Amino acid sequence: MTTALSAPPALRAQAGRLDAADPLAPLRARFLLPPDVVYLDGNSLGPLPAAVPPALDDAVRRQWGTGLIGSWNGAGWWEAPLRVGDAVGRLIGAAPGQTVAGDSTSVQLFTALDAAAALRPDRSLLVTDPGHFPTDRYLADAVARRRGLDVRRVPPADLPAFLAVEGHRTAVVSYSPVDFRTGELYDLAALTRAAHDAGALALWDLCHAAGALPLDVDGTGVDLAVGCGYKFLSGGPGAPAYLYVAQRHHAALETPLPGWTGHAAPFDLAAGYRPAPGIARARIGTPPILSLLALEAALTAFDGVDLRQVRAKSLSLTGFFLRCADELLTPLGFTPVTPADPARRGSQVTLRHPDAHALTRALAHHGVLADMRAPDLLRFGVNALYTTHTDLLEAALRLHTLTVTGAYDRTPPAPGVVT
Amino acid sequence: MTTALSAPPALRAQAGRLDAADPLAPLRARFLLPPDVVYLDGNSLGPLPAAVPPALDDAVRRQWGTGLIGSWNGAGWWEAPLRVGDAVGRLIGAAPGQTVAGDSTSVQLFTALDAAAALRPDRSLLVTDPGHFPTDRYLADAVARRRGLDVRRVPPADLPAFLAVEGHRTAVVSYSPVDFRTGELYDLAALTRAAHDAGALALWDLCHAAGALPLDVDGTGVDLAVGCGYKFLSGGPGAPAYLYVAQRHHAALETPLPGWTGHAAPFDLAAGYRPAPGIARARIGTPPILSLLALEAALTAFDGVDLRQVRAKSLSLTGFFLRCADELLTPLGFTPVTPADPARRGSQVTLRHPDAHALTRALAHHGVLADMRAPDLLRFGVNALYTTHTDLLEAALRLHTLTVTGAYDRTPPAPGVVT
Repeated sequence: MTTALSAPPALRAQAGRLDAADPLAPLRARFLLPPDVVYLDGNSLGPLPAAVPPALDDAVRRQWGTGLIGSWNGAGWWEAPLRVGDAVGRLIGAAPGQTVAGDSTSVQLFTALDAAAALRPDRSLLVTDPGHFPTDRYLADAVARRRGLDVRRVPPADLPAFLAVEGHRTAVVSYSPVDFRTGELYDLAALTRAAHDAGALALWDLCHAAGALPLDVDGTGVDLAVGCGYKFLSGGPGAPAYLYVAQRHHAALETPLPGWTGHAAPFDLAAGYRPAPGIARARIGTPPILSLLALEAALTAFDGVDLRQVRAKSLSLTGFFLRCADELLTPLGFTPVTPADPARRGSQVTLRHPDAHALTRALAHHGVLADMRAPDLLRFGVNALYTTHTDLLEAALRLHTLTVTGAYDRTPPAPGVVT
Repeated sequence: MTTALSAPPALRAQAGRLDAADPLAPLRARFLLPPDVVYLDGNSLGPLPAAVPPALDDAVRRQWGTGLIGSWNGAGWWEAPLRVGDAVGRLIGAAPGQTVAGDSTSVQLFTALDAAAALRPDRSLLVTDPGHFPTDRYLADAVARRRGLDVRRVPPADLPAFLAVEGHRTAVVSYSPVDFRTGELYDLAALTRAAHDAGALALWDLCHAAGALPLDVDGTGVDLAVGCGYKFLSGGPGAPAYLYVAQRHHAALETPLPGWTGHAAPFDLAAGYRPAPGIARARIGTPPILSLLALEAALTAFDGVDLRQVRAKSLSLTGFFLRCADELLTPLGFTPVTPADPARRGSQVTLRHPDAHALTRALAHHGVLADMRAPDLLRFGVNALYTTHTDLLEAALRLHTLTVTGAYDRTPPAPGVVT
């Protein structure tokens, strides 16, 4: 990629200085990033970690090809959902034995929402974010319909006031700490406390938070959490999701999908279901081992990494990009919608512009991969494990040039196209 | 593996003759079978197809590593569940557009059972096989509990008589055409007709049938079907499952897990769920692409293969093994439980012996991989794409020698061990 505009010298100097002083810079070598690409879409699909190809080759050729059926024991496939669950648990502040990996986020959400509602059978409200990701909203509606609950859509900022009035009827509050559109970060600990003060359970979707910032689900008293494996965890396309359930809920936990692998004695092939002790009861069917082992290998990119350092660098990256936007893009009609306050900022910057879709395509054409959310939001995700300040300067400059020159195709996208 | 006993010359000659005349013999080269192993556990985990490693390497390094997020469109990831579904559909007699691949068999069963019950809202019974695989039984119980249905457990042979009395109350019958323990084959077409005559829906679990024998879900009027990708389809450990729903049910089909990928316009990120037309509405969350593409590559092992020939060879293999058992094993206390009648035989032979577990382990030690089902069944699965008659003779001879010499460890297995 060639730089389209000479960068303002102060921004260029700042990017160079920040990258040179970055203690996490060596981590970038843990990813196989293509040259000539500025990758700012890791909040949608993380790039390929270097540890994955050899791990998957071993899983396929040795474990499956040679070990065959014996690898369920011999290569640890059977335990993989719990082992990988614990590896994710380390990134979200969960002590071992509370997190299971497998299935999709949607299936895990269904399990979590249904199980949470069952833990508060005397309450009638399921409270969720009107701006929540579609699957979260659809499954909240589906679980509520099934269980005869009413759904209330309350923005995170209004949740404490809502709970002060309706908390006694609220079974579960289901939120994400990071708005997937705007990148706004909410106070997970405070909202969890508000839920608990009302006697409700707190269920968190960590898709846009896990791996991007320190989380402490145990310490903050989160009841249940789910998340995907393919964003900041870089586990690969459609990597298995995970479900966390706090240990205090295990004994009473009833899952809606009692598959055979969650049975207390799965190989007895018993006529009736008897749930396994602990989080293992949330296992469902036979897990997709190849995708699961790719995720496990991907998680080694976090080995020895302090998530507080990840957070600090992430804020440095997004802060720098906001400065670039302020100098180069807001004069051209871009409006940052991600909060400037670091305490309210996740690991992405979102800019509003009426040509968001066309600009995203044009950026990709020039090797800058970001994405957009309809109708007018450009999203730039940063991952402190591999993103540099220089990446962000290049992206801002390219966007500046495209907008100034108008050299992009404004044809609306074909319906149904993946954006 | 060395042969432990000189084979009776007639059996040796017959095996050689049958293998020499086998028109499917060249297909064995489509699998990377380890030397020195006789693999008779493909009805639990199919071996590694030769097409998988290069396909997965391409998926990881080129599609994910280089194509990054663009591969959702550029490499056809988004359409993969429907494309792979159609590829499975070709093996089960489903015209395109009725089969979706993804999730586990357990999740697909939950969807199928719940959706089937919803299609017959005025009926109160869910009828299933008392000998059905555990997940099928557990999920039938779970769906029935949720929907206020009663479960009746009726052996396949008794189903027509049961339906003659209780058919008018029966919403759905849920069966497998092949008993996973005994290998007995039931008459899918006749049982489907019996269900339809009673106004009920027929849901089939094809795990032990798809890829092993010709199926004609469209022609026989099957309403819904599910199956796994990792047995006779050889899609890899925990390969994604599939769901077939006959086209006539699509418009009314309501799935219990309305995830975002089943939405009519998933990238509109709409507030409310609106199901996609056709089988696409049965998509749930983001699919595990690596496992899904491994399954897709594995299915190419069936390219140009006539499933009637597969069935003919499968029957030749199981018939030959029953003859070996008759001559070499029944005198030693083994009892075949798989029907001798070819019309009632799936693609496995099961022998009963009190030391089933210990003998399975001892066989594995000598390179003969079969498996067992508690307490006393040894299962020998054959797959016409790679199994030879000589494989089966070697297995029978090894079992004979082990039993005659008593040279195996009868220590009971540790509880919880995967068998």
